[in-house]
Amino acid sequence: MSQKIKNALISVSNKENLNNLLKTLRKYKINIISSGGTYRSIKKMGFKCKEISEYTGFDEMLDGRVKTLHPKIHSGILFNRKKGAHKKQMKKNKFEAIDLVVVNFYPFKEILKKTTKSNKIVENIDVGGPSMVRAAAKNCNDVVIITDKEDYLDFIKEIKKHKGKTSLNFRERLAGKAFGLTAFYDSIIAEWYNQKLGIKFPERKTFFGKKINQLRYGENPHQKSSIYLSDLNYDKNNLEQLSGKDLSYNNYNDIFAGLDILFSEKKLSSTVIVKHANPCGVSSNKSSFKSFINAQASDPISAFGGVVACNYKINSGIALEINKTFFEVILAKGFDTKALKILKKKKNMRIIDITKINYKSDTTTKIFDNSFLLQEKDKTVFDKKKLKFVTKIKPTKSEIKDMEFAFRICKYVKSNAIVITKDNATIGIGAGQQNRLDSCKIAAQKARKFQPNKLYNSIAASDAFFPFADGIKTLISAGVKIIIQPGGSIRDKEVITAADKANIKMVFTSTRHFNH
Amino acid sequence: MSQKIKNALISVSNKENLNNLLKTLRKYKINIISSGGTYRSIKKMGFKCKEISEYTGFDEMLDGRVKTLHPKIHSGILFNRKKGAHKKQMKKNKFEAIDLVVVNFYPFKEILKKTTKSNKIVENIDVGGPSMVRAAAKNCNDVVIITDKEDYLDFIKEIKKHKGKTSLNFRERLAGKAFGLTAFYDSIIAEWYNQKLGIKFPERKTFFGKKINQLRYGENPHQKSSIYLSDLNYDKNNLEQLSGKDLSYNNYNDIFAGLDILFSEKKLSSTVIVKHANPCGVSSNKSSFKSFINAQASDPISAFGGVVACNYKINSGIALEINKTFFEVILAKGFDTKALKILKKKKNMRIIDITKINYKSDTTTKIFDNSFLLQEKDKTVFDKKKLKFVTKIKPTKSEIKDMEFAFRICKYVKSNAIVITKDNATIGIGAGQQNRLDSCKIAAQKARKFQPNKLYNSIAASDAFFPFADGIKTLISAGVKIIIQPGGSIRDKEVITAADKANIKMVFTSTRHFNH
Repeated sequence: MSQKIKNALISVSNKENLNNLLKTLRKYKINIISSGGTYRSIKKMGFKCKEISEYTGFDEMLDGRVKTLHPKIHSGILFNRKKGAHKKQMKKNKFEAIDLVVVNFYPFKEILKKTTKSNKIVENIDVGGPSMVRAAAKNCNDVVIITDKEDYLDFIKEIKKHKGKTSLNFRERLAGKAFGLTAFYDSIIAEWYNQKLGIKFPERKTFFGKKINQLRYGENPHQKSSIYLSDLNYDKNNLEQLSGKDLSYNNYNDIFAGLDILFSEKKLSSTVIVKHANPCGVSSNKSSFKSFINAQASDPISAFGGVVACNYKINSGIALEINKTFFEVILAKGFDTKALKILKKKKNMRIIDITKINYKSDTTTKIFDNSFLLQEKDKTVFDKKKLKFVTKIKPTKSEIKDMEFAFRICKYVKSNAIVITKDNATIGIGAGQQNRLDSCKIAAQKARKFQPNKLYNSIAASDAFFPFADGIKTLISAGVKIIIQPGGSIRDKEVITAADKANIKMVFTSTRHFNH
Repeated sequence: MSQKIKNALISVSNKENLNNLLKTLRKYKINIISSGGTYRSIKKMGFKCKEISEYTGFDEMLDGRVKTLHPKIHSGILFNRKKGAHKKQMKKNKFEAIDLVVVNFYPFKEILKKTTKSNKIVENIDVGGPSMVRAAAKNCNDVVIITDKEDYLDFIKEIKKHKGKTSLNFRERLAGKAFGLTAFYDSIIAEWYNQKLGIKFPERKTFFGKKINQLRYGENPHQKSSIYLSDLNYDKNNLEQLSGKDLSYNNYNDIFAGLDILFSEKKLSSTVIVKHANPCGVSSNKSSFKSFINAQASDPISAFGGVVACNYKINSGIALEINKTFFEVILAKGFDTKALKILKKKKNMRIIDITKINYKSDTTTKIFDNSFLLQEKDKTVFDKKKLKFVTKIKPTKSEIKDMEFAFRICKYVKSNAIVITKDNATIGIGAGQQNRLDSCKIAAQKARKFQPNKLYNSIAASDAFFPFADGIKTLISAGVKIIIQPGGSIRDKEVITAADKANIKMVFTSTRHFNH
């Protein structure tokens, strides 16, 4: 148990919920020290309060940059209440104990929303606040540090329970939270600097996240889970849910996989259907209806229970199609009134408006046990100048455009990836195999099963080179007439010979697209 | 350009490389302020230096907890050199500008290595240092902040180039780095608190990483990448490389996938072969040689070029087997001298000793564009008490043990996952399919191709329930006699009927193992 709290220092940017806290402090005869806006608020509410400058005897200076950075404040927070020497020094300097520190910072993200001017942004970096928070959190053996207005009530309960005192466990929990806040605050500032200076791989990299939802469970029911927002500019992930059950871990996982693919198409109406983090149908078309139909036709069995992402507004025609089967999640850039009414009939189906979503990260990260891999996002499809037309017959310009679609989708399929397409729609996706031949077989099997008529004259893309000719032979015998792949195998010659023998067209991109 | 630097404050835990810096400061007639150990070091090296307490006129107190937390120090750092009002206040208080701050912290991780006592650990949390660093970094418009001895040389070059001044770009780069350090430092402290208090899902979560290697490239050659260490206790990832080329992004990705699986087996000698982040062969055996042979036999085509992880010491017999084919990486708990000599013949092959590796994370994290999913690690295989013996014929105790192996490996295969095993070795792995039937087909095809003789009386595990009977029919017709799966489908009855019809044994675990 701590000693009774005698003095409290309050300096808060967010002044909500203060009244009850102040009443409790008054009840326990705790003196309040404060300054600036917080001081004025406290006085206005009718409570006693001493100005920090009066308390320290030092006039605040530099437009408030230096007011609490004073030995009287920091000694009051930091001294060890059990050490005789510390107590003596405090007495000698006529310093008093500060046993409660209530501080929150002006959120750095709010500044970023208001201005893009560096000097304005930097001016808002809080120095005095984090110093006090860290000092109080460090000395949580003796001091209570409150950094969140949501904790006032817990504090009031605690101090009532212990008659003016608090338990160590309570103080430690708040101290951990305080360091969580300072770490978060500085991570955002560091990230802002990295972006400003164009540094993608700093020596020390921190990721920050604010919990936005505790999920029912994780990837499996026996795993607890939460989702965090990690955004320099937004306070929401902008997945605006209009109807349906809460999103699950696996929903989110599929949603993010789907959005990544969806946003790779800039012009045409596109539909992406995701299952187990892999696309099982992707289609781009001038008609959004056709785009939906083609995406679903790619693998209707896998699509069952999948996540559907659309870069267009869903109309009633598409809504009726959607309702013919079972999907877990529908994401779209808006829904017209009729469509929404139709879709809402399926009470459980999550309906999400993604109009406001903003995708912009330049890097991807994989976290392992005690390491993480940080890399630039795979933003290239291929460099047209680097294309090598390796077969006797060359593709036409419009065929190159279609090949670009196939190769781009391939980028998002788990490696080894083979994607067979026709008219900017997938008709067979071979995903996640440990060898390329198996992926070729799976892609061809799927196309044969669901849309054999489309296989004739189709296009196949491979995320990496073919190590042997067997893979392309499998594709050719299925009906593929154009192949796009990085090239670069020591057996490229054999592969080209097989293509020429079959009179098909093949292009090397020199760009590989592994994705694991 | 800044003004000429007049005063520098130096307070460093790591005192290396100081000499050249001090010489340069002397050359440019820069006064030095310091205290404690740094002060004594500087004096010892023969440079002039003023004690901080003498500078501020305030005796340091509380065993050094409060010495730099003083208005004279912080005003000196924080005042805006271009603002008349600021300059006036400085003059009035007789405060001087501090234009250079050189501070590094005693690494928090070092404390954790030395003690587990909370009060000792907390005592070592630096308060004054981060306050100065943050103040100087905030005011980088006027102040240089150096937090790393490796930056002394750059500073010396900079100040020589600009004759006692520095450029804004230089100062901003160092300021960004400084906030990277304070964010990193507090993230570690927050994580320590979270672990101490058993908090897995804090409101604000930060991940910290220190760059340990810039990689040649990322998942693909057009993506830049680096690997970071994120460990509360270690400064190395303890992958001790003995030979071979540098590890690539994809090597690391496969290594971590492999180690996860490897460490799930506590008793038997185990071999895991990974390709494209999926296992293509796993085997546990009393004999390490047999374990290796069986793992490779599971899918020798996919194993080609894979990552091999072994929880045993590799002897010359295994080394000779390894050298018969091509692997990218060999990980093992040691290599005997002969074995190492044999393996080193393959100059490019990465040989890595994992004896010292320490795996302990309780959570897994997936980072997306502006969100991350944090969840408890999937540590359960199944709860024996919850097993349901649903078929007419029940498995024996030893069969249940074998089923546990199959189901455990299934946990690590990308969903939908089907794993067929015989004698604690995989013989067919169906990974990453968007529907379960396809995974069943792939697993059966692999077993048929490579080890058809082992299919008879084999065991199959499924990471989730079978939505229809078609999947288990495929497995049964391949020769599978025992099936382990979570159960829970609305068609469980059909599935059980199919199993009973075929006279096979089936067990429901009630535990699902999705892994994407």
